[in-house]
Amino acid sequence: MKYPQALQNLIDHLSNFPSVGPKTAERYAFHILKQNPEKTHNLAQAINELSEKIIICHSCLAVAENDPCSICIDKNRRSEVLCIIEDIQDLIAIENTKQYNGRYFILGGLLNTINEIGPKDLNIEKLTKKIKTENIKEIILALNFTLEGETTALYLNKLLKDHLKITRLAKGLPAGSNLEYADELTLGSALKYRSEIN
Amino acid sequence: MKYPQALQNLIDHLSNFPSVGPKTAERYAFHILKQNPEKTHNLAQAINELSEKIIICHSCLAVAENDPCSICIDKNRRSEVLCIIEDIQDLIAIENTKQYNGRYFILGGLLNTINEIGPKDLNIEKLTKKIKTENIKEIILALNFTLEGETTALYLNKLLKDHLKITRLAKGLPAGSNLEYADELTLGSALKYRSEIN
Repeated sequence: MKYPQALQNLIDHLSNFPSVGPKTAERYAFHILKQNPEKTHNLAQAINELSEKIIICHSCLAVAENDPCSICIDKNRRSEVLCIIEDIQDLIAIENTKQYNGRYFILGGLLNTINEIGPKDLNIEKLTKKIKTENIKEIILALNFTLEGETTALYLNKLLKDHLKITRLAKGLPAGSNLEYADELTLGSALKYRSEIN
Repeated sequence: MKYPQALQNLIDHLSNFPSVGPKTAERYAFHILKQNPEKTHNLAQAINELSEKIIICHSCLAVAENDPCSICIDKNRRSEVLCIIEDIQDLIAIENTKQYNGRYFILGGLLNTINEIGPKDLNIEKLTKKIKTENIKEIILALNFTLEGETTALYLNKLLKDHLKITRLAKGLPAGSNLEYADELTLGSALKYRSEIN
């Protein structure tokens, strides 16, 4: 015995979502089934509009509504500084700090030997082309403080260090953290990169 | 800084799914964004078709593709036995045992004093009407072995016991269980409802 075809079809679709198994997909499908038809229609429309309205900015490779995106055409932002990030979520996180006034470039992933993600799988070719043509003077590597992020940062540093200034996000204690519970790598970095109190 | 409007719109929709917060909704939205456009279109279509193709069987109140549903019109099934269940998921679970050959009735919930779900919120009126008009001789209460399930079973038993035979699912040790780890309520029930070995 299976669910009615239309219901099973939706469950199969939802099972493809990341970390969603058949049971969770069922819950979602029943949630959709139970909500009012207008909401259901709006959900379907939102999904359809995604592929119609969202495009990739050719300049920074971020998802956006216009090409070039609002950040790339903003003349109040410094054009000679480029922040290299893994994906759009990181862009939002940095924008929310309100501390950065340059532009971005989406790398589209991190080097990962286990999953066989090499330099050719990332947007590195586009990055080097952008650096050459757009008079970039500094790139900030804003990559995760993980094995993959570190590997990628080292790779990019080696590739680009002769052409421009390369900086990276500071490593150290996070806000609200307790020295006692900090891991050795973090505490070690915090010591190494200690700064003078102004 | 927020995501592009169409993306944020979808994230808001997905945040309404049960136990899905904004971060998980983001992951789902990016999953949809990254998959190929045909798949995205199919997902939207599957959602739209749900409200068009799925209807409620007027006889058992289950979601189905036809009204009456395939179970209610199946003449090989006993029409005088009615299995009372909370929702369609329970129907599927019982059908999968291949041990039941009667019909079903969806209660649409369980009595719950904390969430203020009373008899009027369930399909009890339709149930009594169905019992009166359709010559039902036995109802099987297949409700969860929880406080809400027990309350509902007691309520229905009191309401209907003068009119027909009422049985309920056996309580006892589940398959593959270990006596040592069984809770007291389960083990108590298993003792109380012990049966002779044939």
